[in-house]
Amino acid sequence: MSESTLTFPESDARKLEPHLPPKPSSTTAVSSGPQNADQPRLPFVTLTYATSLDSALALAPGTRTALSGPQSKAMTHYLRSRHAAICVGVGTALADDPGLNCRIAPRSDDNGQQQAPQQPRPIIIDPHQRWAFTSESKVLQLARAGRGLAPYILIAAAGTEPPAERRQLLEELGGKYISLGDSSSFVMEWRDILRAVRAEGLDSIMVEGGGQVISSLLGAPNAKMIDSVIITIAPTWLGAGSVFVSPARRLDGARNPVSAGRLVDTTWVPLGEDVVLCGKIAKTRS
Amino acid sequence: MSESTLTFPESDARKLEPHLPPKPSSTTAVSSGPQNADQPRLPFVTLTYATSLDSALALAPGTRTALSGPQSKAMTHYLRSRHAAICVGVGTALADDPGLNCRIAPRSDDNGQQQAPQQPRPIIIDPHQRWAFTSESKVLQLARAGRGLAPYILIAAAGTEPPAERRQLLEELGGKYISLGDSSSFVMEWRDILRAVRAEGLDSIMVEGGGQVISSLLGAPNAKMIDSVIITIAPTWLGAGSVFVSPARRLDGARNPVSAGRLVDTTWVPLGEDVVLCGKIAKTRS
Repeated sequence: MSESTLTFPESDARKLEPHLPPKPSSTTAVSSGPQNADQPRLPFVTLTYATSLDSALALAPGTRTALSGPQSKAMTHYLRSRHAAICVGVGTALADDPGLNCRIAPRSDDNGQQQAPQQPRPIIIDPHQRWAFTSESKVLQLARAGRGLAPYILIAAAGTEPPAERRQLLEELGGKYISLGDSSSFVMEWRDILRAVRAEGLDSIMVEGGGQVISSLLGAPNAKMIDSVIITIAPTWLGAGSVFVSPARRLDGARNPVSAGRLVDTTWVPLGEDVVLCGKIAKTRS
Repeated sequence: MSESTLTFPESDARKLEPHLPPKPSSTTAVSSGPQNADQPRLPFVTLTYATSLDSALALAPGTRTALSGPQSKAMTHYLRSRHAAICVGVGTALADDPGLNCRIAPRSDDNGQQQAPQQPRPIIIDPHQRWAFTSESKVLQLARAGRGLAPYILIAAAGTEPPAERRQLLEELGGKYISLGDSSSFVMEWRDILRAVRAEGLDSIMVEGGGQVISSLLGAPNAKMIDSVIITIAPTWLGAGSVFVSPARRLDGARNPVSAGRLVDTTWVPLGEDVVLCGKIAKTRS
């Protein structure tokens, strides 16, 4: 558990700044992007993932594949320091036993004090309660050690009550279960997920994986809830049979396929062997 | 047929130079990369294509999808000016009716003379003679107008003779059929294709598409014949059901999947809204 801290260069951070939520130190209200006055506020949503050239996240379902280089890893942890919450699907929790904390090195503030980075709140989407975590799960170990926060686990209200001992383990460390939806369905809507996150006082969230979570958020009509997209592309091909990211097909009025989505206001930042693409989801005509 | 000429900025061209075959004006022998002394020489092979973020070439098989922006298009034509041949599969010939010529604007040489760009020789891989071209096919129109070269069409020796009138049409414009392989199979090996190209005195070739051609060249054991890879990535997702590029899966000794390929000596060049990735195929241990 003694993992080293990471440093992300200030010069690279400046290139990302236009694509990030306002800094937590800011006293102004968070202005997350595509909001309507008559709708409950949503958090600022950053979708971020690392892929191969053939748009794969991992060599096979349920496996973890190291794709991007050390600079990109430092960037991911910098992004975590800039978001109130970090979200993964249960598949990633099961496959990776992820830490979901921020390992950016402490920095000196204006008074010369060492400031530890803000830790993001892990949000695990787990409608069917498939994640049988224990006190040895990495995210709970880190919370116990004060080097991360315990997760909020989103489960379907349609399911059974979580086991009492697991709920206790979670709550002792500051985490909890959050039930979503009604009693008839295990399907979770992104709008409900994001509203629940905002209701917890979390005003920004980065969605990190895995494949299903990313593809569903990128598909219509969810993509319009994304404020910022930050994708790392590694110069590698994983090959057929890998876990690919691709949103659902979109059709025009004549039922011909059209582009499923496009980024605008893009910035490409070469980072070591990889490239980082930042942008906003283009508004579609439909 | 009156298409405008294109200009590719010198500053961008300099970034690509390390990834291109030696200039045709060079009097030294072409040194294409991974050659053994005991093997017939192969041309310098550049694999180049444009994809979406989800590694798609087109929205559906048999359709053409405009992916990359005007700067990337100018780059493609600049690359064509730097290769003796340009190769596509029959699927692309059927779907796109491509011109396969170079539209880079003439440049002044050292003596102040306007120099038209070198036109690449189109190579069409068409083992089953599916491409029923006519005198109105774009590549033949351009050859007739002196603005491109007539194609060399690679057909399987196992097939029937091409129709006499089509052969005549092709040969009048300087093109021809080239038969490959033996009488028992329609499968073409990349080594045989590239040897045939070199035997025609063509010392460099860019392979442009489509999906099957690219994926097969990227797969083992063909990828080691590639000298340079130049990929344009557009900030768009085409979505499920599109024509994806992904090489065949590779397995290690224990039959676990491993990365199907990786680029080294990479350069990322942001170009308009797109990014261009240049690199060399990494040598694999197997």
